[in-house]
Amino acid sequence: MEHYKGLKPSRRNFLTGAAAVGGALAGSRLSAQTADPLIVNPQPWRQDLGAGVDAAPYGVPSKFEADVIRRDVPWLTADAVSSVNFTPLHALDGIITPNGLCFERHHGGVAVIEPSEHRLMINGLVDKELVFTMEDLMRFPRENHVYFLECAANSGMEWAGAQLNGCQFTHGMIHNVQYTGVPLRLLLEEAGVKTEGKWIMVEGADAAGMNRSIPMEKALDDCLVAFKMNGEALRPEQGYPLRLVVPGWEGNMWVKWIRRIEVGDQPWHAREETSKYTDLLANGVARRFTWEMDAKSVITSPSPQAPITHGKGPLVITGVAWSGRGTIPQVDVTTDGGMNWHKARMSGPSFDKSMHRFYYEMDWDGAPLLLQSRAHDSTGYVQPTKDALRKIRGENSIYHNNGIQTWAIDADGKAENVEIS
Amino acid sequence: MEHYKGLKPSRRNFLTGAAAVGGALAGSRLSAQTADPLIVNPQPWRQDLGAGVDAAPYGVPSKFEADVIRRDVPWLTADAVSSVNFTPLHALDGIITPNGLCFERHHGGVAVIEPSEHRLMINGLVDKELVFTMEDLMRFPRENHVYFLECAANSGMEWAGAQLNGCQFTHGMIHNVQYTGVPLRLLLEEAGVKTEGKWIMVEGADAAGMNRSIPMEKALDDCLVAFKMNGEALRPEQGYPLRLVVPGWEGNMWVKWIRRIEVGDQPWHAREETSKYTDLLANGVARRFTWEMDAKSVITSPSPQAPITHGKGPLVITGVAWSGRGTIPQVDVTTDGGMNWHKARMSGPSFDKSMHRFYYEMDWDGAPLLLQSRAHDSTGYVQPTKDALRKIRGENSIYHNNGIQTWAIDADGKAENVEIS
Repeated sequence: MEHYKGLKPSRRNFLTGAAAVGGALAGSRLSAQTADPLIVNPQPWRQDLGAGVDAAPYGVPSKFEADVIRRDVPWLTADAVSSVNFTPLHALDGIITPNGLCFERHHGGVAVIEPSEHRLMINGLVDKELVFTMEDLMRFPRENHVYFLECAANSGMEWAGAQLNGCQFTHGMIHNVQYTGVPLRLLLEEAGVKTEGKWIMVEGADAAGMNRSIPMEKALDDCLVAFKMNGEALRPEQGYPLRLVVPGWEGNMWVKWIRRIEVGDQPWHAREETSKYTDLLANGVARRFTWEMDAKSVITSPSPQAPITHGKGPLVITGVAWSGRGTIPQVDVTTDGGMNWHKARMSGPSFDKSMHRFYYEMDWDGAPLLLQSRAHDSTGYVQPTKDALRKIRGENSIYHNNGIQTWAIDADGKAENVEIS
Repeated sequence: MEHYKGLKPSRRNFLTGAAAVGGALAGSRLSAQTADPLIVNPQPWRQDLGAGVDAAPYGVPSKFEADVIRRDVPWLTADAVSSVNFTPLHALDGIITPNGLCFERHHGGVAVIEPSEHRLMINGLVDKELVFTMEDLMRFPRENHVYFLECAANSGMEWAGAQLNGCQFTHGMIHNVQYTGVPLRLLLEEAGVKTEGKWIMVEGADAAGMNRSIPMEKALDDCLVAFKMNGEALRPEQGYPLRLVVPGWEGNMWVKWIRRIEVGDQPWHAREETSKYTDLLANGVARRFTWEMDAKSVITSPSPQAPITHGKGPLVITGVAWSGRGTIPQVDVTTDGGMNWHKARMSGPSFDKSMHRFYYEMDWDGAPLLLQSRAHDSTGYVQPTKDALRKIRGENSIYHNNGIQTWAIDADGKAENVEIS
């Protein structure tokens, strides 16, 4: 049983919100069956037979959840085939992202691959070059791990100040699922990496042929060649039938529709690790090979897309935190823009390089709030302010912005993306 | 990094399966770019731009996965509105069931509920009868837990011997997701349970008005009033917008579309706990209140719907195990009908009252196999044979059959549901 560190609703507090049955029925205290206001006015769903078990072989969400979708920002890119959409973090809870809502980032649109025709090739500095079918890969030992996948450009627009009004857009280039796959190490061992093989180049089977270099140490550590997410086959937009999983590292390296792994003695300096995915500093020098995603967090509710609608009294503040370097043992929440910090309650499993869920329960007096969250990871690193990051990195980059996010809540419960210093 | 206790594919073994590049190209050893057989014959997905990020606001599986669906058995029940369909366990991996594939069991079809009109009432032996809106419930502290939900009738047809040819049908009345919800304890504390309140009756808002009795001790222990599964809102067929979660206990008690909780001093003896969900023994006496789901396991691949198609050599055997009384520290696998048992490799997280994933990797010589798995739970309980269960319980019941399942694999790799004694 979890211990609620935040203020939990007391009976007195809560009753200002929920209706006592007596109140709902004009003060009369009645026995259960006759008092039930739902029997007096039965809703249609209590009178009508619904759909049977043959109606939806693959289920879909309720029609009342039609707004909980991935959203793109058409002005952001020249074409939707090389663009991004965003996970609706404000509407989710727990730590698992359902497959239908995992954000997408493509460079040449979604490849539609017939799995029986898909091949994975290992070539270069190996004893024996190999081509695997999907069936071949299913004969290797598999592992199951929950990992977050975050685009390096997540929160990128925020380098220049508060830009996007909603955590779906400021922080929604992330998802968190359980992957099933074969350790890349086993496939490289099968091919036999030569002594001089220090890097791999991974390449997708999509029209963009997206490729990235990865150091051999990481390749042999925890990378997976994955074929399932949250139990079922990868979704097409997530690399069906095969993608690379590079735990804790920037999403661009998690090559989708992976078709080739070349072993070499140095990095390839591909387009996506030179002109893109390098971090231009104020002095014109670019940081490169900034692979790890630093500890980060965001309050998902209340937030601009999830305002407070219930007035004052008990309020649940919740959000997510993650680190590419380990777990998140602690998240702090402030409601006054950083003057006072409170330890949030962590809820749900804590996995290495996975999203974590936190809550902070409070009694809201109806006054404006400045909400922030601050993640601590298992290495001792503490999430910095955006200003602290800007002092060192300038504002040229669009990548690796893990600064603290601020939401201003007004007396009506509306939330806005703001910067405070 | 996991240690593979089973036989892992050795390079020599494996190469009988995968094609070495040299072999695929008639023995010529070529450099990577020119050797690549995929460049010689590029597939269409490498030439065509695919769909953009605006194409699928809520994603769906690949068209090549069209067979991975819930399936019902029309002859099983008189009408699909009071029937069941089954999770395709044979096609899944890891421990999370994606929401679209969670089996369904309805008594009056799927209620389609407008969440703003939904109410949860607590009445009976309480200090203050209460009616909660969904918004009220969102103001209480929430928890996140991964639990299995298994129908008490899962494997029920197997009491009379091997009946259904596929683990989707023999064991598919189970799913395993992460729930987000409010501890029921907090709501009961809000209402104030009177000293004589020892039971609750929980009732659904569907046309069937499904109801069950639950002892107060369980209600105050780990039950959740849940509104999310795997991060998003409950699916309509899983109780949207609100269901009860009764960890480890039979699925029928997890009332969907929950609208009322009555506190009483004794059980209600509702239809679903008298004429149904009691276990008729051979002597005519029925076991009642058999709530906990005992430890159980099944091999999901190979299995009748997932035969071996790759011939002899490295073979991955995998399955799932669970217990309503705790975790699963160990699963044993036999390939010879129980003469020799081998410890399987557990992979992925081990949660209380959750599904666990196991693997056993072997080198298959092509001879017929008799595959079984046997779960051990954290209380020390070991999954029994079906015959051992029948000796005590007879064959009248359709509930709580957690006996060991056998698949016979023939030399062609086909699998069949069999009984051995």
